[in-house]
Amino acid sequence: MRSFEEHRAAVEARIARWCAEMPPNELHAPMVYLMQLPAKRVRPVAVLMAHELFGGASDGAMEEALGIELFHNFTLMHDDIMDEAPLRRGRPTVHAKWNVNTAILSGDAMLVRTYMQMAADARVMALFNEHALGVCEGQQQDMAFEQRDDIGLEAYREMIRLKTAVLLACAMQVGAVRAQATEDDVQRIGQVGEHLGLAFQLRDDLLDAFGDPDKVGKQVGGDLRAGKKTWLLIRGLERSREQGRAELLEELAKSPADRDVPRMIRVLNELGVRAEAEAEVAMHDATALAALEAIQVPVERKRPMQELSALLMARTH
Amino acid sequence: MRSFEEHRAAVEARIARWCAEMPPNELHAPMVYLMQLPAKRVRPVAVLMAHELFGGASDGAMEEALGIELFHNFTLMHDDIMDEAPLRRGRPTVHAKWNVNTAILSGDAMLVRTYMQMAADARVMALFNEHALGVCEGQQQDMAFEQRDDIGLEAYREMIRLKTAVLLACAMQVGAVRAQATEDDVQRIGQVGEHLGLAFQLRDDLLDAFGDPDKVGKQVGGDLRAGKKTWLLIRGLERSREQGRAELLEELAKSPADRDVPRMIRVLNELGVRAEAEAEVAMHDATALAALEAIQVPVERKRPMQELSALLMARTH
Repeated sequence: MRSFEEHRAAVEARIARWCAEMPPNELHAPMVYLMQLPAKRVRPVAVLMAHELFGGASDGAMEEALGIELFHNFTLMHDDIMDEAPLRRGRPTVHAKWNVNTAILSGDAMLVRTYMQMAADARVMALFNEHALGVCEGQQQDMAFEQRDDIGLEAYREMIRLKTAVLLACAMQVGAVRAQATEDDVQRIGQVGEHLGLAFQLRDDLLDAFGDPDKVGKQVGGDLRAGKKTWLLIRGLERSREQGRAELLEELAKSPADRDVPRMIRVLNELGVRAEAEAEVAMHDATALAALEAIQVPVERKRPMQELSALLMARTH
Repeated sequence: MRSFEEHRAAVEARIARWCAEMPPNELHAPMVYLMQLPAKRVRPVAVLMAHELFGGASDGAMEEALGIELFHNFTLMHDDIMDEAPLRRGRPTVHAKWNVNTAILSGDAMLVRTYMQMAADARVMALFNEHALGVCEGQQQDMAFEQRDDIGLEAYREMIRLKTAVLLACAMQVGAVRAQATEDDVQRIGQVGEHLGLAFQLRDDLLDAFGDPDKVGKQVGGDLRAGKKTWLLIRGLERSREQGRAELLEELAKSPADRDVPRMIRVLNELGVRAEAEAEVAMHDATALAALEAIQVPVERKRPMQELSALLMARTH
């Protein structure tokens, strides 16, 4: 059984080989650029871990692991256009470095390259297609939410489930399917991935508002300053309404540069939203571990995935 | 054996059913809109014809035929963004009717929906992936050509082969593969599709410059006015250089609105470029028919595809 870091090193090696094999043209250069930015590789490692969990060989699902990472980076390339984001992991986004048309087209070709990695197994294809469509639906809801002020926590949860958690679930299910897991086990590992994914995303939101700026590597409160509708802000507005408090609405009425972000963070603390979010993270993590528990394989095989959960929960950036 | 029109009616019925099944949301509405615009459906009909040619049932490759048409419309949705085109078949393009972000995302989901149609057969998937990547490469070359003034006829031919002819070749090969055709026959039918595709595209260029405006349904010479690097213009510039004539360069130096398009058309005629292009169309058509000839199936099965060739050659719009 490989550890997280061992899987990660194997994934990096496969990615390096893939990058070296790409034709050196303007269609492929943006893909290679994005794939070479420093990244945690959580999703491809999840494919390999799920594969080993069900008795597969360490590298037995490496092609699909690469495919999942390609798909993730394809979504980044196109999402960054839609969000007009200038930076990704501290480096220029593809549309900023090249141009929008190149980012559209290179992204399209990257989705085709994703499918080249997935084509060997019809069961993998069916799983992946369904999840890929879910990710598109999540992004569509995310864009629609930006135009609206009445998003409830339930709608937000569904959006974030589709946009981010579903891909981690898909990654684990693909690894399981390649190891000939039963349909029931594929469902169970999907629950593991989905709840870890939800915990992971919510942890991101928490770190943005309450993280240590030195460790997070950026100013805290960036989402709050931008008025981004995260779990924290949506729940904060709900609780404010219940308790008749106006601070968050006052701050949101200002332009981003004028917002008193420390005041917003203080209010979220006072409303108990931070504690609630931390409880929600712990709940998702526990649900994921319980789903893992229910899978009937030798316990020692479960260790790397428990390690993954601990890593995701302990991270400070 | 079905005629072109019979296949076309069957394709239209399948598309109508597909449109009715799509969820009524902003991710899918643009796909349905584009799929419902009036269209010739040459590519999906080509799938079905190739399938019947090799002994397949009339509707035996209908899912893949739908997939090919979805893919074609996906490329239209994204190409129209890149070209900033306001109209498609006389109707607003998706990014004009909705917005650019919706067109990017709905296009992405349309590519996923394409793969849902292709997933049943690993051989189909391998074929399709290779061709889909070729189409992206063709579009990339097309965009690069717009920035350059030194495109030769060979580079243009390769671009147009990738961007348009390859998809007709792919359509026919997918139909053949679904009918269990041999590898040699799959290669042969690919030649039929590729040369018909090249003839089809060059015929388009010819109609734009020399067609009957009443039948073409738009002002002739639109490509020339825009200075678009078609086969005709590239060859016209080559012949002008050989013969020391300056009219085309003079007109291209003007702004589009000031160009004397009738003069450009007259010069292309005088240089013999029109006649050359017509000879090239006839050559591609003959090459396609010869490749069809070499396929060992009962001759009566070849009739619909010969009819397709005749239809493409005779068309006036």
